[in-house]
Amino acid sequence: MANETVFKRYPNNPVVTPASVSRANSIHNSAIVKYGDGYAGIFRVDEIDFSFKMHLGFSTDGIDWDIEETPLHMTPEHPGILPHARTYDPRLTEIDGTFYFTWCHDSNQGPCIGLATTTDFKTFIQREDIMPPANRNCVIFPRKINGKYAIYHRPSDRGHTPFGDMFYSTSPDMVHWGTHRFVFGTVDKSWQSTKIGPGPAPIETDEGWLLIYHGVWTSCNGYLYYAGGALLDLDEPWKVIARTRDYLLAPSEIYERVGDVPNVVFPSAAVVNGETLRLYYGCADTNVGMAEAEIPELIAFIKERSL
Amino acid sequence: MANETVFKRYPNNPVVTPASVSRANSIHNSAIVKYGDGYAGIFRVDEIDFSFKMHLGFSTDGIDWDIEETPLHMTPEHPGILPHARTYDPRLTEIDGTFYFTWCHDSNQGPCIGLATTTDFKTFIQREDIMPPANRNCVIFPRKINGKYAIYHRPSDRGHTPFGDMFYSTSPDMVHWGTHRFVFGTVDKSWQSTKIGPGPAPIETDEGWLLIYHGVWTSCNGYLYYAGGALLDLDEPWKVIARTRDYLLAPSEIYERVGDVPNVVFPSAAVVNGETLRLYYGCADTNVGMAEAEIPELIAFIKERSL
Amino acid sequence: MANETVFKRYPNNPVVTPASVSRANSIHNSAIVKYGDGYAGIFRVDEIDFSFKMHLGFSTDGIDWDIEETPLHMTPEHPGILPHARTYDPRLTEIDGTFYFTWCHDSNQGPCIGLATTTDFKTFIQREDIMPPANRNCVIFPRKINGKYAIYHRPSDRGHTPFGDMFYSTSPDMVHWGTHRFVFGTVDKSWQSTKIGPGPAPIETDEGWLLIYHGVWTSCNGYLYYAGGALLDLDEPWKVIARTRDYLLAPSEIYERVGDVPNVVFPSAAVVNGETLRLYYGCADTNVGMAEAEIPELIAFIKERSL
Amino acid sequence: MANETVFKRYPNNPVVTPASVSRANSIHNSAIVKYGDGYAGIFRVDEIDFSFKMHLGFSTDGIDWDIEETPLHMTPEHPGILPHARTYDPRLTEIDGTFYFTWCHDSNQGPCIGLATTTDFKTFIQREDIMPPANRNCVIFPRKINGKYAIYHRPSDRGHTPFGDMFYSTSPDMVHWGTHRFVFGTVDKSWQSTKIGPGPAPIETDEGWLLIYHGVWTSCNGYLYYAGGALLDLDEPWKVIARTRDYLLAPSEIYERVGDVPNVVFPSAAVVNGETLRLYYGCADTNVGMAEAEIPELIAFIKERSL
Amino acid sequence: MANETVFKRYPNNPVVTPASVSRANSIHNSAIVKYGDGYAGIFRVDEIDFSFKMHLGFSTDGIDWDIEETPLHMTPEHPGILPHARTYDPRLTEIDGTFYFTWCHDSNQGPCIGLATTTDFKTFIQREDIMPPANRNCVIFPRKINGKYAIYHRPSDRGHTPFGDMFYSTSPDMVHWGTHRFVFGTVDKSWQSTKIGPGPAPIETDEGWLLIYHGVWTSCNGYLYYAGGALLDLDEPWKVIARTRDYLLAPSEIYERVGDVPNVVFPSAAVVNGETLRLYYGCADTNVGMAEAEIPELIAFIKERSL
Amino acid sequence: MANETVFKRYPNNPVVTPASVSRANSIHNSAIVKYGDGYAGIFRVDEIDFSFKMHLGFSTDGIDWDIEETPLHMTPEHPGILPHARTYDPRLTEIDGTFYFTWCHDSNQGPCIGLATTTDFKTFIQREDIMPPANRNCVIFPRKINGKYAIYHRPSDRGHTPFGDMFYSTSPDMVHWGTHRFVFGTVDKSWQSTKIGPGPAPIETDEGWLLIYHGVWTSCNGYLYYAGGALLDLDEPWKVIARTRDYLLAPSEIYERVGDVPNVVFPSAAVVNGETLRLYYGCADTNVGMAEAEIPELIAFIKERSL
Repeated sequence: MANETVFKRYPNNPVVTPASVSRANSIHNSAIVKYGDGYAGIFRVDEIDFSFKMHLGFSTDGIDWDIEETPLHMTPEHPGILPHARTYDPRLTEIDGTFYFTWCHDSNQGPCIGLATTTDFKTFIQREDIMPPANRNCVIFPRKINGKYAIYHRPSDRGHTPFGDMFYSTSPDMVHWGTHRFVFGTVDKSWQSTKIGPGPAPIETDEGWLLIYHGVWTSCNGYLYYAGGALLDLDEPWKVIARTRDYLLAPSEIYERVGDVPNVVFPSAAVVNGETLRLYYGCADTNVGMAEAEIPELIAFIKERSL
Repeated sequence: MANETVFKRYPNNPVVTPASVSRANSIHNSAIVKYGDGYAGIFRVDEIDFSFKMHLGFSTDGIDWDIEETPLHMTPEHPGILPHARTYDPRLTEIDGTFYFTWCHDSNQGPCIGLATTTDFKTFIQREDIMPPANRNCVIFPRKINGKYAIYHRPSDRGHTPFGDMFYSTSPDMVHWGTHRFVFGTVDKSWQSTKIGPGPAPIETDEGWLLIYHGVWTSCNGYLYYAGGALLDLDEPWKVIARTRDYLLAPSEIYERVGDVPNVVFPSAAVVNGETLRLYYGCADTNVGMAEAEIPELIAFIKERSL
Repeated sequence: MANETVFKRYPNNPVVTPASVSRANSIHNSAIVKYGDGYAGIFRVDEIDFSFKMHLGFSTDGIDWDIEETPLHMTPEHPGILPHARTYDPRLTEIDGTFYFTWCHDSNQGPCIGLATTTDFKTFIQREDIMPPANRNCVIFPRKINGKYAIYHRPSDRGHTPFGDMFYSTSPDMVHWGTHRFVFGTVDKSWQSTKIGPGPAPIETDEGWLLIYHGVWTSCNGYLYYAGGALLDLDEPWKVIARTRDYLLAPSEIYERVGDVPNVVFPSAAVVNGETLRLYYGCADTNVGMAEAEIPELIAFIKERSL
Repeated sequence: MANETVFKRYPNNPVVTPASVSRANSIHNSAIVKYGDGYAGIFRVDEIDFSFKMHLGFSTDGIDWDIEETPLHMTPEHPGILPHARTYDPRLTEIDGTFYFTWCHDSNQGPCIGLATTTDFKTFIQREDIMPPANRNCVIFPRKINGKYAIYHRPSDRGHTPFGDMFYSTSPDMVHWGTHRFVFGTVDKSWQSTKIGPGPAPIETDEGWLLIYHGVWTSCNGYLYYAGGALLDLDEPWKVIARTRDYLLAPSEIYERVGDVPNVVFPSAAVVNGETLRLYYGCADTNVGMAEAEIPELIAFIKERSL
Repeated sequence: MANETVFKRYPNNPVVTPASVSRANSIHNSAIVKYGDGYAGIFRVDEIDFSFKMHLGFSTDGIDWDIEETPLHMTPEHPGILPHARTYDPRLTEIDGTFYFTWCHDSNQGPCIGLATTTDFKTFIQREDIMPPANRNCVIFPRKINGKYAIYHRPSDRGHTPFGDMFYSTSPDMVHWGTHRFVFGTVDKSWQSTKIGPGPAPIETDEGWLLIYHGVWTSCNGYLYYAGGALLDLDEPWKVIARTRDYLLAPSEIYERVGDVPNVVFPSAAVVNGETLRLYYGCADTNVGMAEAEIPELIAFIKERSL
Repeated sequence: MANETVFKRYPNNPVVTPASVSRANSIHNSAIVKYGDGYAGIFRVDEIDFSFKMHLGFSTDGIDWDIEETPLHMTPEHPGILPHARTYDPRLTEIDGTFYFTWCHDSNQGPCIGLATTTDFKTFIQREDIMPPANRNCVIFPRKINGKYAIYHRPSDRGHTPFGDMFYSTSPDMVHWGTHRFVFGTVDKSWQSTKIGPGPAPIETDEGWLLIYHGVWTSCNGYLYYAGGALLDLDEPWKVIARTRDYLLAPSEIYERVGDVPNVVFPSAAVVNGETLRLYYGCADTNVGMAEAEIPELIAFIKERSL
């Protein structure tokens, strides 16, 4: 296969398939973190009635997963917070021992960002939604910045949004959000020309925040999804230090090219083991794949191939 | 493979491929019935000039097919009935020893439903078209209901109709049609959210008319086709008793995912052998596949997974 | 004003404005016939909540109208016939002392043709809908043809249908309709290039059925509506004898150019007084206008300016 | 003219035309409040190069206006706040002697809500934008609710957004916003079927918050804009007490039907004089019109004609 | 009326209406030159069957026009040149006593540029088309440049082209064209944001070629047309010296706002009388209007208000 | 595999994959000619930053290719000719020992045809662009016709042009082009119904010019590309002698069905070895495939299966 750059695909990909859950039509864009001695995950499970659910999963090595048969249950923080019928594309961040997780849900006014917290992956408290609709792809930073919580997110529209740029916003309390800053957008005539959006939560490095993101190109047959990388200023994370002109991953393996949506790699979770970054990504909206890169090589690649 | 429910795919699928006819580009959505000691079929053969023809085929076991090299010939009932240049998606029904078959043809005003009859699969009499354009997916009931012939059909528009609900209509004479009744439509945020349409002719059971139908979902890369099931009232067949929320079949095998139109299963014929329902379906607009279910299990599934 | 051909506009146009009914936003495409010593009309009244109703009106001269404040009430012929919430664009035809009237209503599957009868303009019996959706602009012939009731109508789609051709269909019983015949369609690069549809009910003449119809052209600012005329074979009314290449009426007066939908003349009713044809037409989807032509001149015009 | 309900148009409408400012192409959707002994206004002035500016204006009676020739100047609160190149559709609210005003500006990521404050209509301090793009039609409540500032606003997309529902959000500091609540949306098959948005700032009454809003209908020739009214709960303003099914104002006068965008009434400011509500509204995207209603009659109308 | 800049509209506008030709639906975008002691014109006459014809007209003062009842007749230069069925938007240029005129015709592959010559406005020789489809708005320079004939033109697509930039091309023989140069295109967020195109043939001045052109803006109700001006290098006419940011003319009079296409001013011919430039322009796709400017003021305006 | 006609695919297809160039995302629609003792090629290499480059390649047998790592370099003939940033889909023709090659480049006004010449595949002189934008798929004839250079080309629009017919044009000097003749267009309801375009340069035969071209069909999932063939008059090459109704090649192998754009065969180069025509074609916008046919059989096929 061509197109291999600093990421090496796991040879037995995909690591999770719909066979893991009885009612699954597909299991793809999912959130995974290190937890206890192993790994915990919140998996996007699209069921055979096309209800979109999130299921808990656990693994000792991050490869073999035990995914629960029933969807994850949340308790609202107060009665004004309503349950969401259709949830997808979770992202997970740990801040001081608490796991914050966001997801997208389809409100009557378009996709919207939900928020919940857990400390034990058993009890989940649902909080206020982070933005009004329409919004997608919200990831929380792993620490406060200048005394405020911080996120990357993407304002959207309803439907298969044909555009999308990334914003940075902050909050004193995880309820009220403001000081919105444009971070970066699309690049004309490229694999990231239709829209872009943050993938896993940013990773702090000496060189800046390391962000893996997705970019979308529209061929005459629809959307194709790619993965790119960026480095952003540690104190003012809306300032771009470097950002890949070359992609990091492109759909090329058969399990990335053939599935419910052909030609999709969608990065959604990253785990750091020493100098190795392990990336989990959705494959053709059907499976979960994994690929690994050495962080110094990855940072060098982003800086050398920067726009 | 995931996604297997009460239907078991024939392991040597597809049962018919374009190799069966010299001029075939694809052979897919086709009509098959029991006839004599074996099976007769009317196959949709899209030729290498993209003319859409119907060809006769015969088989002793319904698996190995002998398909004629030249298209089926019809004689008009009277001179006002004109031949159709472009015909596709046939459906077959036997009523009292006569086989009625409908198909879709592309008139200047959009797709339209043709009708013909045969008793011997040698002579075919073409009758008046059943509806004005635009209409698709017309199936005839295997007996009169309340003294009238009855059909399910789907009003459409021109082109790749982005909507579609099913109607029930009746006729005293197979020429004039009326008493149009809405039966059921699409289901928001599901595999049947874009349009639905009847598949094989309805099968009479103690629990009601058993109907296999297709449902369409629109991803950011176009249409995907699924199979669902319904039970309908025996005397008033526009009344729904039960209808699947979970799909019965989804595109998941390579021959269903890769072809002229990726990700299509299109049910078009059903044959009953004792308690077994054998379903024939188009695969990726390229081949014909087959899958079988036990009728009691299928009915139970439809009732348990009903919307 | 330019554009005057054989029709002479009534100098005090419009003859009906929204001021005639308290809750009217607009009163436009309406049905008018001679009745008793004067005229009876069924008016399309779009209310200030955008509910679309039909109101009865009466006039001694066809110019000064007394329109009822409350919508027309119908009694269903049998319980299977449901009331319509949103009705518009009525057409009226007398056959042997009974007045048949059709209208369009917005069903969940698109616009659909309703049917009712009256003999006294007090009691109205609602009958079976004439066609399944989507259909528009159905007019009934004033007598049976070859022993069957007959109509012109236009198969449509949902929404602002961007196409439309006229069909002829017949019925033994005003319930079941068949023998659909294409009559005529659009004319490329003309005022009738987007869609066409029948206007008032056809008028029998020695030269054939005289039909006034509307044609639509799409500019870079949307649809414009014009009136044209046709002569059709008395016994086989799907056969066109002559059909105007030149339009009969075009939006040109200020009350036709400015209103809820600019640039619309929509013919919907015709009354014959001796050799004079009085045409009623909707103006800019806001008012009702009137224009008159001498029938011999009109027929000569249609024949001389025929496509 | 028909269509007059509880509002009476000022007979010499329009009150402001492009003739008031040398470089104006049009002056329409504008903000007006009582100030000192008279009135102050912030006017939307689209110039002859299609730059969109806001100009200050003053009037003793609210009818005769003196509008400044040069655009309003703002000073940013801190250097991170950038000037906006293209501003339009201002709204004004007084809270405890400070005037807050919002407007829409075209950012690279779509329309976005700007915020500024003044106490003397001479010095204007520009604050943090209220929401990330895309958002339109933000109005600030005239007092805190449950200790927080509150707004109505409409999430949008880029371009001529073909949808739009109203949301309620709160803030402790006019910088960070959260607790987003859906208020109300469109009404199928009505003058408010495409999108809706808040008009002037809400007015507190014994019966609840009185809100005038706009609704949009899409004909086959594009958008038409209407005015409606609503009453909302004083403590939980996302709860609707009553909301007009009938419109309050529809485009019907020539200056509302003919202009840069035909058929537009766009309410943008309301001033209370005793029991009289004076409404200012944009006319055909070209002029400013005025109409008055008695508040008790207006409230009664909203309650009686409620959805 | 506002919006008057250096151009003064003729007070009795429009100067030509459909009343001038019996079969005219509209007479608008037309070509006019000085000829003999007066003026000659080639008028776009859209007839009442929507055939688009060109008619000759003559006038002693350029205001009162005598337009011929029958369309202009052309003789092909050789048999390979076919007559055009549907012609519109003519432009006229004199070179050394020969009048060259171009027009647009609707070929099966889209709009295309026709060419003919005359010396006496009686005999017209049709030449080879200037470009393959799709192309619009071709104007010929009044002298050779660097030994070659030269044009401005606009590559287009089929239908209501939603884009359009101006090109310069040259020819040794008026048959073969090459050395295509981009001249200028649209300006984001302005009255010239959708497309632009040359109006009358360029006028040579000491300051460069003076070009009046049209610009199009797309509101939520479709296209609006404006007039702007440019100065271009005398020897390398693809190089822009100055180009208006402010428009020269905007639709504002009732005859420019109301008509077959509302809100259109379309400049198509210019005549120089001493220092006065007389501009003829289409009004709302219905009439011909006229406005005059002093050339020194016009050039000053273009230079001062340049982008 | 079905669908094999007179062309036999090379069994080890694809002959070129992205693995041949380090920075390649894909290598597909490419130009190949015989040169010296072997073959020379200009390959379309889309890089991993989605820049589109052309790379030189050489081969002794036309199967094993040595493709250069850096893009081909061109020298402009004169300073008015600017370099092109984004080039793709090259075609090559030899005339009297000089190799002319055309390609498509993305100008700001849409795709446009570049031209260059070489005699040694080391030095390349870039010439004037052949047509103004938008144009695609230009191929040069291998000799002058009636004393002029000649091409086939396709006028296009910007983006994924949803139409396209082929034109013939001539030039005395390879700079100025004229005498545009429509050659042939699409065929309704076929594999060539959306658009068509010339493939390799025409090949002279006793029976006329032999042209392999591509045809596009639009399914509900986007575009599919096929190969067809035509014979054209030797002296008047816009006159069609025969043209395939049946396609020559359809996407059916896995490397033609799965890739960046599924279901594409795009013929771009042909080499004649005795009576054998070797065709090179792009596969799924990812690889280069090869297939061979005997020319007498191919000509017979085109004549027998002609439209």
